[in-house]
Amino acid sequence: MPDVFADLGMSLDGFIAGPNAGPHNALGDGGARIYQWAYQLQAWRERLGRSGGETDRDNEIAEEKFARAGAHVMGRRMFDEGEAGWPDPPPFGAPVFVLTHHPREPWERQGGTTFYFVTDGIESAVEQPRAAGDGKDVQLSGGGETIREGLDAGLLDELQIHLAPVLIGAGVRLFEGLRQDTVVLEPTRVVGSPSVTHIRYRVIH
Amino acid sequence: MPDVFADLGMSLDGFIAGPNAGPHNALGDGGARIYQWAYQLQAWRERLGRSGGETDRDNEIAEEKFARAGAHVMGRRMFDEGEAGWPDPPPFGAPVFVLTHHPREPWERQGGTTFYFVTDGIESAVEQPRAAGDGKDVQLSGGGETIREGLDAGLLDELQIHLAPVLIGAGVRLFEGLRQDTVVLEPTRVVGSPSVTHIRYRVIH
Repeated sequence: MPDVFADLGMSLDGFIAGPNAGPHNALGDGGARIYQWAYQLQAWRERLGRSGGETDRDNEIAEEKFARAGAHVMGRRMFDEGEAGWPDPPPFGAPVFVLTHHPREPWERQGGTTFYFVTDGIESAVEQPRAAGDGKDVQLSGGGETIREGLDAGLLDELQIHLAPVLIGAGVRLFEGLRQDTVVLEPTRVVGSPSVTHIRYRVIH
Repeated sequence: MPDVFADLGMSLDGFIAGPNAGPHNALGDGGARIYQWAYQLQAWRERLGRSGGETDRDNEIAEEKFARAGAHVMGRRMFDEGEAGWPDPPPFGAPVFVLTHHPREPWERQGGTTFYFVTDGIESAVEQPRAAGDGKDVQLSGGGETIREGLDAGLLDELQIHLAPVLIGAGVRLFEGLRQDTVVLEPTRVVGSPSVTHIRYRVIH
């Protein structure tokens, strides 16, 4: 069965976005530094329709993550923030299941991205692409609330953190408010570069 | 010139101790999980006068850290917490410079540990062992306040974090209250095991 995974950048002090995150400021004030390691990579640039870029080990890690996601699940807030800023085609190239309380018709964009709006909860949102099944994994794309919800519900199989060597000081913490006693993690791979440390955790159920 | 370094365990959610830390509860409630990877290591057991233990890669990392510290600098609170709990000989085997506002005669213990009480600030506390000079490095041993003070004052050359795959949820955060815009870090080495991820950062001045 395909894995459900999350894959995101975090500052060394635990933030996935700076303060005042919202539409047109998805990563919050100063939060762009969390992904400083990624912007110049070929795989990242390609996702945004640009050519060129670095092809180092960090790039391989980014490529691997893009390749494995056959579908995305995201929270309503992340969708709202992204809707204002994503280009068309959006940087997914796969179906995206948006958790919401408000039914809405599917929204098809270029490049294989269609947004489906799911009103019956995260388990359903994860199950739909798994059942449709191209065999690829399902990514819990964010935001933090949605990833915490997946962790708390025991839905997440793997978590990759790209630990950026920066201190943000304030903003959105990945693990704030988690019922943390339900989560057991085991590091399964670590790859380091001078820009970032990629750590993969298996979530033990 | 010898380096000034800090070397400590941190949970994936950024805590170096759980809540209610104090004398007889140095790591706070649940905080012992942050060092779960270390207790069974030969180098750690040896420091506490015990024999046996694991001799794996994690143990090499612990040995390396113990070997390089020619002196320690610690805050008054860490000393107060430790004074109640450390065995004699205490687990340092080297001079320890304690930051305090209250002058006190040096306190000599077995095994090479003598506590010196420094009333004229962290720069002096770091400079004294550097000048005395066995050529070994000086460790800012903690607590978090003292490490932050060293970072803010530009005294720290290297920081090694042993990132434990646990979530603590509450307690003492390493980077809380840091004037974070003064700190630039570069990862220089990463070593992973199924129990912990050791990340070394050079502090760029």
